Formats: sequence, structure tokens, C-alpha cells
Amino acid sequence: MAIKNLYTTVRNYTTTICSPLQVEDYVPQPAPFVSPPKWHLAHTTWFFEQFVLKEYNLEYTVYDSDFCYLFNSYYNNVGKRVFRTDRGNISRPGVEAVFAYRAYVDKAMVELLSGNLSDEALDTITLGLHHEQQHQELLLTDIKYILGSNPTFPVFNKELHWESDKNDAVGFVAVPEGVSEFGYRGDGFCFDNELGPHKVYLHQFEISKALVTNGEFIAFINDGGYENFNLWLDDGWSWIQANNISAPMYWFADDNRWSQYTMSGIKEIDPDAILTHISYYEAAAFAEWKAMRLPTEFEWEAASDLFDWGKRWEWTNSAYLAYPFFKRPEGAIGEYNGKFMINQMVLRGGSCATSPNHSRNTYRNFFHPEERWQFNGIRLVKNL
Amino acid sequence: MAIKNLYTTVRNYTTTICSPLQVEDYVPQPAPFVSPPKWHLAHTTWFFEQFVLKEYNLEYTVYDSDFCYLFNSYYNNVGKRVFRTDRGNISRPGVEAVFAYRAYVDKAMVELLSGNLSDEALDTITLGLHHEQQHQELLLTDIKYILGSNPTFPVFNKELHWESDKNDAVGFVAVPEGVSEFGYRGDGFCFDNELGPHKVYLHQFEISKALVTNGEFIAFINDGGYENFNLWLDDGWSWIQANNISAPMYWFADDNRWSQYTMSGIKEIDPDAILTHISYYEAAAFAEWKAMRLPTEFEWEAASDLFDWGKRWEWTNSAYLAYPFFKRPEGAIGEYNGKFMINQMVLRGGSCATSPNHSRNTYRNFFHPEERWQFNGIRLVKNL
Amino acid sequence: MAIKNLYTTVRNYTTTICSPLQVEDYVPQPAPFVSPPKWHLAHTTWFFEQFVLKEYNLEYTVYDSDFCYLFNSYYNNVGKRVFRTDRGNISRPGVEAVFAYRAYVDKAMVELLSGNLSDEALDTITLGLHHEQQHQELLLTDIKYILGSNPTFPVFNKELHWESDKNDAVGFVAVPEGVSEFGYRGDGFCFDNELGPHKVYLHQFEISKALVTNGEFIAFINDGGYENFNLWLDDGWSWIQANNISAPMYWFADDNRWSQYTMSGIKEIDPDAILTHISYYEAAAFAEWKAMRLPTEFEWEAASDLFDWGKRWEWTNSAYLAYPFFKRPEGAIGEYNGKFMINQMVLRGGSCATSPNHSRNTYRNFFHPEERWQFNGIRLVKNL
Amino acid sequence: MAIKNLYTTVRNYTTTICSPLQVEDYVPQPAPFVSPPKWHLAHTTWFFEQFVLKEYNLEYTVYDSDFCYLFNSYYNNVGKRVFRTDRGNISRPGVEAVFAYRAYVDKAMVELLSGNLSDEALDTITLGLHHEQQHQELLLTDIKYILGSNPTFPVFNKELHWESDKNDAVGFVAVPEGVSEFGYRGDGFCFDNELGPHKVYLHQFEISKALVTNGEFIAFINDGGYENFNLWLDDGWSWIQANNISAPMYWFADDNRWSQYTMSGIKEIDPDAILTHISYYEAAAFAEWKAMRLPTEFEWEAASDLFDWGKRWEWTNSAYLAYPFFKRPEGAIGEYNGKFMINQMVLRGGSCATSPNHSRNTYRNFFHPEERWQFNGIRLVKNL
Repeated sequence: MAIKNLYTTVRNYTTTICSPLQVEDYVPQPAPFVSPPKWHLAHTTWFFEQFVLKEYNLEYTVYDSDFCYLFNSYYNNVGKRVFRTDRGNISRPGVEAVFAYRAYVDKAMVELLSGNLSDEALDTITLGLHHEQQHQELLLTDIKYILGSNPTFPVFNKELHWESDKNDAVGFVAVPEGVSEFGYRGDGFCFDNELGPHKVYLHQFEISKALVTNGEFIAFINDGGYENFNLWLDDGWSWIQANNISAPMYWFADDNRWSQYTMSGIKEIDPDAILTHISYYEAAAFAEWKAMRLPTEFEWEAASDLFDWGKRWEWTNSAYLAYPFFKRPEGAIGEYNGKFMINQMVLRGGSCATSPNHSRNTYRNFFHPEERWQFNGIRLVKNL
Repeated sequence: MAIKNLYTTVRNYTTTICSPLQVEDYVPQPAPFVSPPKWHLAHTTWFFEQFVLKEYNLEYTVYDSDFCYLFNSYYNNVGKRVFRTDRGNISRPGVEAVFAYRAYVDKAMVELLSGNLSDEALDTITLGLHHEQQHQELLLTDIKYILGSNPTFPVFNKELHWESDKNDAVGFVAVPEGVSEFGYRGDGFCFDNELGPHKVYLHQFEISKALVTNGEFIAFINDGGYENFNLWLDDGWSWIQANNISAPMYWFADDNRWSQYTMSGIKEIDPDAILTHISYYEAAAFAEWKAMRLPTEFEWEAASDLFDWGKRWEWTNSAYLAYPFFKRPEGAIGEYNGKFMINQMVLRGGSCATSPNHSRNTYRNFFHPEERWQFNGIRLVKNL
Repeated sequence: MAIKNLYTTVRNYTTTICSPLQVEDYVPQPAPFVSPPKWHLAHTTWFFEQFVLKEYNLEYTVYDSDFCYLFNSYYNNVGKRVFRTDRGNISRPGVEAVFAYRAYVDKAMVELLSGNLSDEALDTITLGLHHEQQHQELLLTDIKYILGSNPTFPVFNKELHWESDKNDAVGFVAVPEGVSEFGYRGDGFCFDNELGPHKVYLHQFEISKALVTNGEFIAFINDGGYENFNLWLDDGWSWIQANNISAPMYWFADDNRWSQYTMSGIKEIDPDAILTHISYYEAAAFAEWKAMRLPTEFEWEAASDLFDWGKRWEWTNSAYLAYPFFKRPEGAIGEYNGKFMINQMVLRGGSCATSPNHSRNTYRNFFHPEERWQFNGIRLVKNL
Repeated sequence: MAIKNLYTTVRNYTTTICSPLQVEDYVPQPAPFVSPPKWHLAHTTWFFEQFVLKEYNLEYTVYDSDFCYLFNSYYNNVGKRVFRTDRGNISRPGVEAVFAYRAYVDKAMVELLSGNLSDEALDTITLGLHHEQQHQELLLTDIKYILGSNPTFPVFNKELHWESDKNDAVGFVAVPEGVSEFGYRGDGFCFDNELGPHKVYLHQFEISKALVTNGEFIAFINDGGYENFNLWLDDGWSWIQANNISAPMYWFADDNRWSQYTMSGIKEIDPDAILTHISYYEAAAFAEWKAMRLPTEFEWEAASDLFDWGKRWEWTNSAYLAYPFFKRPEGAIGEYNGKFMINQMVLRGGSCATSPNHSRNTYRNFFHPEERWQFNGIRLVKNL
């Protein structure tokens, strides 16, 4: 049965991601928005135990009742959770115990998947796999953040050269005005926040086929971009002042040369590579400096067949809000997306760290405007 | 000349607002988002000195060069400013000195307005008057906050009964789907953020003719609305936890009776009066509890002829972002609106504290989702 | 009767101190450790109402029951108090109302003082007058802080030249070793923390007849004193880093010249004048730089007849702790001193701002090591 | 040679302490005052590399130049250090690498110790061993804190029953008044802060032979000790309010029974066992409740032959300040003690976690008044 293979494939990929780690690397939480790898491994497992095994296997025995408390992320309906900022203080269960937990749940899941399952159960399992894929991406970016917090800047994987990704095309492409339909309309899986096909009127615009490069951003820096408040949103200006920010995340200036921490260690910046690790604030300031703007999420989706995407999550100028016909699912699963619809901006497109088969042009990712530890990027738009 | 009379009328109204105050009331800043009345009086005056008199009267002598520094609000282009949170620490210049500054600038302005002025100068003066009207509203809500911070809860004006405002109509009204044009298209004044007429597609919806009342909100409270996290946005839930919020601002529970601090002192809550002083978070949770939603700013504007408005600023479900053809004006005036287009939500409609002739159905007000010291309210929408 | 005259003299002096103030100056609280002058005026009055009139005049009618709440400082036994950091947010009662409160209480007190009073009552009144004198000094230093927070640096009193005080003598004087008795042993008033005469053994030492001057401290600055961590206590080093401190409070560097804000406005620094407005941390670092040390409070007291004192409160190297036979008085008065005996250092001597007849060589003043808005100074000691 | 054996013994004991740990336990820093075990292991090693091998073995090759930066604690003279609060974010070098570092340095040290060494070198090595013993105690208390931060409360060592230590004697013993000499006067090792024999006059007092027990402290709790502000120092009262403190650290109330987290897991409280894990604030409030007081450090030292000590570090009523003849050593070693002589209180006596042969009656330990993760306790004194 396809879902059983899919289950195994997705679950194994999580383990594969972690293979270069040392035991100690699984523990720290150097920033509130980062989770320890150990926690990701356990939390994605907990999802299947909590929402699948406890629901659809009446004979299932919970592995360890403490884990329900420890590895719940933000599901208030399910019980008390460990505060997000405390995750790095927990050494037990250790890495080996977490892998044992995974094995236990995987065994029970594979057995369950060998029998007949209701559509409802299958839907929840599918959601669980997509949930795990989301955490795979976070796992990679959190690992980069954790290793990058080591003053010795260790190499994670010397074969990964994501920060060197290049554009395949250049120039702008025009999109005519009119009403189009948006939101997911296919038969496959999508998240609740993509649902409710609805119409949006778009005025004509031109959108870049290429993402902004390191070289273009260095030109912005050299032109005093970080010192000119006229380019910045007010909150962005406060943010760069308060945090002494004068370059993208992981960049280091050494005399007049820029280098950056990458998945394969410290490397010199390639001006032709696609820029990444910038906040919405920096994206907006850069667009202002270019006398252009960021696309809305609808402009992006309408034009998504006209350019290559998938190397960087792309900041849009759309706030993360409900689509007109958005309906929150019942129960704990209803906490998945809807409750985050405030104070965040939409990103579209997927990134180098996105799991295989986990992107589509209706996917709505979202982060706070100051967050930049994801592999995000900038695509520009001009009005006609 | 009409503009001269308008100038005098608007400027005098600011003074009239302050007439019930004692000298001491002009000084405190009990919260970072509040400004001392003394500061409002001086800052609105500084606007005319800085952008009109210094530009268009070559013989004008600046009243006091310190004031340029002290009473600049957020115009980075104009010079160093006093940090917003420090405004309550400044006792000098005193109230009398600030009124003398107003008189000096008013005299110069009236002389200037008696001569011939370029269109550009007239535009800036008109902007200055609308700017002053915005501050008149803030002055009133800041005064309420300042007096309300006194443990003795003094009466500001015993004739003001804004908190008792009632609805004139009930029921819902339907709006059909289709493309409409939005943004200011008249000949009069509007702010830059209203400009750029553009089309938006709206699906059909029904919108309430009445604003939510105190009685309806008490039902939400009594049903455990503040304790049920399923109703809340995640940031909203954190906000009510962190700030121990369990009722609208200025409400007090005394045994089983609710009272509130009003412009005319402590009063018992009237269940038929229109609710006010709630955050976006509370508005959204209330709508969720009602199984409805807030209107977008475009739905609101499209339906604005079908209901009464103007007693409460109404929270919409639209983030404050640029219209498609938004262009930031050159120079310091360009800092007026554009740089705040992040992390805030749009309110539409005007309130009891809005100055005469200072509202229109394209006006976009904006506040952070936790802010509630304005006279804001809730209007609900349902999908069909 | 002497106490009646004394009462009137002390109370009037408080009013006299405030005479140069504008109404607005009575309101702000620019730092948590500062209180608005309005508050000092009311709080010292509340002391007599609370502890004298309510106790010893059975027919006394409380002026305003709100005031008991508003103007209590730290007497937990007496009722809920306004949080110290909120004092600057309270505009009402206004200055005139506070003076009316003073007049009302003074009238009742003078009447009470015209009759026969128990020793207990007289003791409490005497304590109230010394309490008021302590607040007179705080009033002066708080006024300096408030006016000094105005970017325009107004003159408080052009006749006050305290910052120009000079030393009368130079050189060191030796004190032989031995056991001496310490603590107040006279018949007059003293605070509870001075009581309990007790013996202390002192080793021989030499103490400076002069206080450290501005010129000596400029030499420390010029020698890189603020940049050399070897001179600093660890908490002091953190404190100067966190607060960007590189000079005494109120000092400004203009090119290569030092000026300071004084009671009579901005003045050039006189190198021969006695240094003031330094923290314990700065005092300790300076002593280290000089290869000397600060005296203990017992060394200071033992030597106090051998030098002039009274212009600056002098930091000692003694922590503020109980004397061996210290007994906390019963009731609210017991909160006066004992509960502050932790995390503070003792100062001895009195300052230019100390009220007439309010200093003695057993007086123990105390502040946290980072506090420096009092007129404090440095006297050095060397071992033999 | 004795020192070589001593070196090996002390160094091995550090490793022995860690033997029950899992790799993950070496990483977290759940509070700023706690250091990860990995850090203790490396830092104590760094001390010998930095101050001994680099000084006295000219051919010594530094193990890894990064480690000098990573494992410096607070020696500003030696180079930039990792901020104390960041220690838990560092996963590399891992545990194995740290043990390799220890082995490398130990090999070099044993070689060095096999040759002739100057007195200066021997003194530094001796200091390094005492330094390591201090860290052994911190290691144990930090391990308790780290494991106690796990919601699953793991057992560290089921044979350790320190929290069940009992008193050997009861009653009070009197000490007559007079002048005595204090400070270390022997031939062995002591820290710089114990040096400078000097005289202190003590009044007569009685001191308890027993330390306060859990049962006595439960009586304090049951009598409302944590709710009665009259018992508390003002800073202590603020501290228990701000941190919701109502029992000693690691105590849990379950219905009406008290249990506590111990080195051997969760155990019911034994009322006869000696109280531990209380702050100075709690010690002082308890003494106030008993109408007694804490001893000064000199009273404690003078009476130390008259009672058993060594199970709990005992809070004294003395602030941690320099002795009269204190001299800071030259260079980095001079940062050892002197710079912490502010804002801390002295503890005397040693505890169950103190290393063998690492206590004496002149030893001055010191902590901030709110710190309570050490095995500290209370001994009471009464005046006669």
C-alpha cells in the first residue's frame, strides 16, 4: 500500500538528515525560535502517537506518558506543554531514548497501515507526514543555527552547497490585469490555509524571473542601505538599530571581503549566488532602494508558471491572513494554522531545504518579519 | 479666505479640548503609546513652523531652536528627536510656554495666510490641519488614559457621554459579489495611503448594520470567552495571559456588576451601549465565538453606504499594507504613512473622538493588534 | 514650646526648597529612584497624619482617604501603596491640592502641639521631623535629576554653588589601633540603626583630610580608568559596560573640556572643587587606581574629629548591616530602616543638600552601589 | 612526589563525579548561574594549560587555540570569553573531545610534575587544584540543577543521601566577649581572601550547635512565614513576590505532604534532616521569625570549635568584603576573589558536596542573597 511506503520513506528521511550530528548537537536551543533536533525527532513521533495511534488503535499502549507533555508543541487542546524557551534545558530523554520512541511508534504505525483504515485516519496520517516534512525543513535550518552558534563553526555536511545556488534566468516578465482564481483546487493534500478557491483582481505588473543575488545585495550595503532610514519600515529601522544588524544572517565582514557560514562551513560569498537569510525588513528596504516592490502572494501565484522557483522561500508583501472561505478544522488539528494568522508575512515557493514533493504553488509559508534563519530570498516586482 | 478661517477654527479646537485640564495633567506619559497633552500642543505647532513657516516665509525667525528637537515626533529626516518613552520626563517648556509658542506660530501663520501662497504651500498647510485633527483625537484618548491612570479617576468633562453611544439599526445587509474600485477618488484632501484607485474582487457577504454592544460582549465574558484558547489567535492568547486581561480596557468588575471609566468618570456599564476599548485580539476572539468574522477593509468600504458609522473606529481583518499604486511622497512628509505599513491592522470609520469633518469612507486608520485606548469597536460579517 | 517652633521651621523649609519650581516640575518621575516633588510634599505630610494625628487626636478627620493609599511610601503595614515606578503618572491631586493638604495637617499638628503630649507622641513627631529632613535632601537631589532630564537644562537656583565646594585642608592623619565604642550614645534624636553602643577593634590607618577633587578624578579618566577592568569590581565593570558610563553623573565632555549640570545650570568643571555624583563602583575603582582604599564606617567615625566633613556624603567600604544589638521597633515604624539592610553600602558624613541640624558623626546613610544622584564623594585611607 | 599524586587524585575525582551522566547531560545551561558539566571539565583543564603549562613549559603546544576563548571563565586579563549565559548553546567540542583535552593536559602536567619546579610554579599548581575542587562542588550542584530541570526528575546517584543529613548535637553554646584574631595563619594553602590575620572585637553571644531542620522550617511555612512581610528584608520580599517563592528550592507540596528532588530522585521530606537550598533572604526571615539572628562570619569562626560543621554551607550576616590587610595578587590570578567583593554574603563551613580536604574554618564562600542551589543551611545566634 502506497501510504505505508510513503510513511517509511518520510520517517527515514528525518533520520537521514540527522546522521552527521554528534549526540551533543541534539540538545541546545540557542534561540527561542529554534528547537533542539532531539525535540523535532520526538515531536513528529508524538504527532502520530497522539492523533493516529491513540485514536485508531484501541489496543495501543502509550510509550511514555511524560512524552505527551514534553513533546507537544503548541496544541493547547492536548495538554500542558513545555514552554518553548525551555526546550534546550532538557537532557532526558536522551537521543537514544528518542530513537527508541521513534522505533516503537513506527512499528505500531506500520502495523496499523497494514490493515484497513478509514478515510479520516488516512487523512490524519497524511497530515502527519506533511507535518513531518515541515519539521524536516526546520530541522535543517535549526541545525544550521545550532552549529553556527558554536564559535568553532563546524561543517555539517561538506556536500551541501545550497548557499551557492544560482539563478537560471534573468529579466522581467509581464502579467496582464484581470480576475483570477486562487487557493488549492487539486485532489492531493494541501493545508487548511490554502483552501477555499476564491477570486482576486490583479492589476498588471512585471515580475523578475531571477531572485536577488548576493552581489546585488552587496551593492545595497555599499550604497549605505543599512544606514539610510528612508529605505526602511519604521519597525525594521528599530530592529536593525536594536540588534546592530548591518548584513544578512551568517555573513561576516573580514576587511573588505564577505564570507558566510554555510552548511559546509565558512565560505567566501559568491556574488552570483542567490541571496538568502534576510528578514522581511531587509527585503522591503532593498526593494525600496531598487524603486520596486515585493509581489503580493496572489501576484506570485498568478505568475508562478513564468519563472523558476523552489530554491528560496520568497517574502511577499501579503500579511498572513485567512482566505475568504477559510474554515478552521474541529479539535486540536484546528490549531495547526489558523491561530497564527496575525503579525506574520506570507512566503511562497519552497527552498533548498524543503523536503522532496513538499512544495506547490499554493503553499503558504509564514514568518514574523524579523525572522531570517530560513533559506528565504527576494523577488522583485514593478508596476507598469 | 477659507483656509485662514479653517486654520483658526482647527487650531482653536485643539485649545478648546484642553480647557478642562489642570496644568499637572499636561505632563505625564503613563504609557509609551501615550503622549503628554503639552507635547501634542507643541508638536502640532512645530509641524507648521517646520514645514510651512521655515519653507515659505524667508523672514521667519524660529521661536526656539530647542523646540525643533523636543517636538519632532518621528521625522527622521528633520533631526534628532526625543525618544518617545521620555516625553513624560520633560517639565520644561511648561504649559504657558507652549501656549506662547502656539500664539507665536499662529500669528505668523495668519500673516502668511493673508498673502498669496503657492499650491504646494497650501497643500502642506492643509496636511498640517489634518495632521492637527489626527492629534486632536489622540489628545482626547491620551487624556482619558492619563486621567484614568489616576487612582482617583477624575471626571474630564461631565457632559461627554461617548461611552453610552447606541446603535441606530439592527440586522444584516447583503452585498453581492463583483469587482469594485477602491481608494480615494474625490477632489478634497486625503492621505497618501488612500491614493491610487484600484480594483478589488469581493465575494458576496452579509455585514451587520449594528456594532457589537456591551451586553453582547458581557455574554462572551460570561461564556468563558477569555479562558477558552480555541477562540484566540496565538499571539492574542499570549497577550491576555501576559497582561492578565479579562475585560475591555477601563472596565472594572465589582461583585457581579460591571462599571467603566468614562470621559465623565466611573459609570455603570449600559448593556445597550456600543462596546469600545477592545483590542484586535479581543475583536477576533469575539467574532470566532459568534462563528462570524471581521470584514476586510474593502468589504467595509464597499458596504459603507448601507449602515451608520462614525461612533467607533472599526477593526477590520486587513493588515495595513500599501495599495497597489502607493507612492511615498518625497522628503520628510514621505515618512507620514508608508513606513508604518507592517505589523498593524486597519481600522475604518471614525469615532466619537474624531474631529468634525475629519472622516470619510476611504480613511485608513491603523494600530497594533493589542492597542485599545482608542474608541474602537467591532462590526461582524458572515459569508453566505 | 520648642517642638512646635521646630515643627513649623522644618515644615516651612520644605516649602521654601520648592519655591523656584514651576507647577510642571512637581510631576515627573524620570527614574524609578526619583520621586516627584509633589509626592515628597504629600508623603511627608501623610507621615504626620498617619502616625501622629490618627493616633493621638481621636477627633481628627482624615483629609482624604485616597491619600493614605497614594502617599504611603514603603510601609507595608499601613496599606496598599502606589508602585514606586508609577508615581510620575499621577497628575491628581495637583500641586495646589497637595499644598492644601499640607496646610490642613499643619493646622491640626500645631493645635496638637499646643496641648500636652505623651513622650511616645513626642518621639513620633520628632521622628516625623527627621523623616521630613531626609526627604528635604531627596527633594533637592530629585529636583536636580528632574530638571537635569530636561534637554534645555534649566537653572534651579542661580545662587546655589554646591558643586564648587572646596576642601579646607590637605594631607593624611594617622589613627592608632585599639578598641573603640561606636553607635549613638547622646541624649538627642537618632535613628534606630545607629543604636546599640558596641565595641569595634580597629587596626591603625591613615585617613585623608581632604575629599577627592574633580581634578584628581579627571586624572583617573585620562589614565584610562574607565577602560581598565583590573581596577573595577566585577559588578561595577558590568554596570559601566551596560550603561555606557565613562564619567561622573551630570558630566559632559565637549571637545577636551568637561562641564557639568549644577543647581545653577551648566558650568565648566573646576578641578579644585570636590568631586561628587559618583557611584560606589567608581569610588572603589578610583581608590584601587590610587593604591589606597575607602575607610570602613568605623574608621570614618573614629577619625571624624580629625577632618572636616559635611559637604559630601562619603562612600565607606562597609555594607549596610545591623549593629550587634540592633532591635527593630514594633509596628510600621519598624519598617523604617531594618528591612533595607541588604545589598547597600553605608555612607557617612552629610552633604551640601543635608538640612540644617540633620547630621552627626554616627548617622548611617545607605545606597545601592550604583546610585549616584546624591551629593556623595570619596575620602581615601591607607594602611600603615 | 606528593604533588604529582595529589594532582592525579584531584583530577580523577572530577571524572568520577561525572560517571553517572549521559552525554546529553553535559550540555544544558538551564540558568545563568549554572554551567554545563562539559564546561567545568574543560575550564578546570584550561586553568592548568593557561597558568601552568604555558608559563613553565616552554615547549608546550597549546591543545586548541579556540579553547582558550571557549573555556576562560572570568579572567578579563587572559582574553575574550564566551558570555556566561551562552555556555549552554555550544555543542562542540563534544564530551569526548573535552575528555581528550583533559588527557592531553594531564599528560603534560604529569611530565612537568616529574621535574623540578619553582615555588611559584608549585603555588600556581596548588591553586589550580583548589580551583578544581571548588568546581567539583559546583559540578555536583549544577548537575542537580540540570537533572532537576528535567520534568522527569531522573536519579543522579541512588547512593547519595545528602538531603537526609542529620544534626549530631542540640542546644546553644556561649562565647564570651573579647578581641580575637581572624584570618588564615597556618602553613598550608588558603585563598587570598582569607589572608591578613587581624583582630576583631566580639561581644558575647550564644550559637546553636545544630543547624535548622526541615521540620523547623515547615513550622515557619505553616505559620505563614512566606506571607508575612514583617519578617522579610525588603529585597527579599520583592524577590519572593517576583518569583512566586513559597518553599525552599526543589521542594514540592503534594496535598499536605512535602517532598523534594534529591541526588537520588524525588523523596519525601524528613523533618529531622537538616534544611538546605534556602536563600539568604529565607535564612534571615526564618531567624527573624525565631527572634534570633544569623552569626557574623567572625562569630562563626570564633565558635567553630564548639560545634560540628561541614554538612551545609552556612549563611552568615557578613557581607563579602576585603579583610583589613587584603592585597590583590598581581596579574590574572588577582581576579580570583577580590573583584567579587560586593553584593554578596559570606557563607562559612563547607557542605556535603565539598571535596575531601577542601574545607577549613577560615574559608570564605560567597553568594548573592537570592542564590540557593548550593547545599547551604542556617545556624542561629542569640544575644545574651
